[in-house]
Amino acid sequence: MTTNQLIDQIQKKKSFLCIGLDVDLNKIPQHVLKEDDPIFAFNKAIIDATHHLCVAYKPNTAFYEAYGLKGWKALEKTINYLNENHPEIFTIADAKRGDIGNTSTMYAKAFLEDFAFDSVTVAPYMGKDSVEPFLAFEDKHTILLALTSNQGAFDFQTKTVNGKELYKQVLETSKTWKNSGNLMYVVGATKAEYLADIRQIIPNSFLLVPGVGAQGGNLQDVCKYGMNNQIGLLINSSRGIIYASNKEDFASAAALNAEKLQKEMEIELQRHSE
Amino acid sequence: MTTNQLIDQIQKKKSFLCIGLDVDLNKIPQHVLKEDDPIFAFNKAIIDATHHLCVAYKPNTAFYEAYGLKGWKALEKTINYLNENHPEIFTIADAKRGDIGNTSTMYAKAFLEDFAFDSVTVAPYMGKDSVEPFLAFEDKHTILLALTSNQGAFDFQTKTVNGKELYKQVLETSKTWKNSGNLMYVVGATKAEYLADIRQIIPNSFLLVPGVGAQGGNLQDVCKYGMNNQIGLLINSSRGIIYASNKEDFASAAALNAEKLQKEMEIELQRHSE
Repeated sequence: MTTNQLIDQIQKKKSFLCIGLDVDLNKIPQHVLKEDDPIFAFNKAIIDATHHLCVAYKPNTAFYEAYGLKGWKALEKTINYLNENHPEIFTIADAKRGDIGNTSTMYAKAFLEDFAFDSVTVAPYMGKDSVEPFLAFEDKHTILLALTSNQGAFDFQTKTVNGKELYKQVLETSKTWKNSGNLMYVVGATKAEYLADIRQIIPNSFLLVPGVGAQGGNLQDVCKYGMNNQIGLLINSSRGIIYASNKEDFASAAALNAEKLQKEMEIELQRHSE
Repeated sequence: MTTNQLIDQIQKKKSFLCIGLDVDLNKIPQHVLKEDDPIFAFNKAIIDATHHLCVAYKPNTAFYEAYGLKGWKALEKTINYLNENHPEIFTIADAKRGDIGNTSTMYAKAFLEDFAFDSVTVAPYMGKDSVEPFLAFEDKHTILLALTSNQGAFDFQTKTVNGKELYKQVLETSKTWKNSGNLMYVVGATKAEYLADIRQIIPNSFLLVPGVGAQGGNLQDVCKYGMNNQIGLLINSSRGIIYASNKEDFASAAALNAEKLQKEMEIELQRHSE
């Protein structure tokens, strides 16, 4: 998917919501556990109820790997279901991969070619040759961890490197990599005040912003400091939407919470266009 | 497995060799491709031919994920085969994972509990709460990326942070984490000259050292600067061993190359004990 197709979708749906499909069998409704493939059954119900309210879905691969072959199969069915039924939706494999060149190529093929996700999240620690294999795929996107939403972000990411914080060094260095136009960045909503500085370095890139809701981030602040002329934001919510209820009504409860966020986003888009 | 059990094994086998099981179907012998599960068949033959010469096996998960369900199944069969037939062998899931706390817990369970690997490699970028969930498993080991063997290591890892290089900051900070006794570190053989400094910070920890052979690292230098009183080294070789031949004799050719390395290691162990 091209960036322009993503922007078109945001404008049509008046939403830049990404829904995190982080399925934990201990948290989903009891009645879904009786299905043959409860993980996929849960995802399908969530997708059917919310796809008109969001522009992206982001399964975190950890939740699938945790269930072994069964989990991997559910991930495959989920991405296939999305690609077949909702090709307009931007899909993100939240995998946080990164390895030496030939190995990163294997990961890139697995997520961008075989699974055919539109994008994959990648960790920057191993540098240029660990990320460029992901960037080589046309009309696919590599979402680099810059400033994450967790407390541990302050261990290294915000430490000063060569006179600037490590996450800024990551942003600046990554701009010099081959096919850097295919880069997007993870910036946690819990650190919205950093967004003004970040926009100085990468004014045009899309940001994937986790941490609104459960982790305490604020949507208005993120939009105030992070939105650009092409919107440039995908705001992720996982637990706040998919676990809105753990009863029979889980899918409609998820849709209700997704709609609340979509309505807030509509206001922000309106404010931004004025 | 405890660290002492690993050290006992090293002393018995006079080897600290780790063999990387990075199976690429484009590189393995044609006749193996005819097997029902060529990836596992290849691994089993390599393991059967080399297990007396090495103390650890390290499948890189990228190579398995690249083959989807089939790959994941082969990884499961490989770790089960090792745990059932060679429980003395130290097993490493080279996964380079790391995510926010609850998500890292899912990865840790997947690799250390369900697959029952002895250890898993983890990326440090997201800090303390992304690594501690891995450290919580008793008699399991978390192998943190410190200074990797690729060229991209110079993009961020060797940049100066608060007056010292980022990889040193990672080493020092990680020592303060809960259950840090379960930490080992990845240090590339291509950067052997850094090992003296590294040993100042983490004198007792085991180091997993990739990059000997194909990537140009030198065994003698690694031992000179990196070996400690408890050996403290696992030297990985992947391509140099498993692709020693792509004909019918691939397993015996692999054993021959593994034995060459084992003999060199025996000399280093002898020299070190004098």
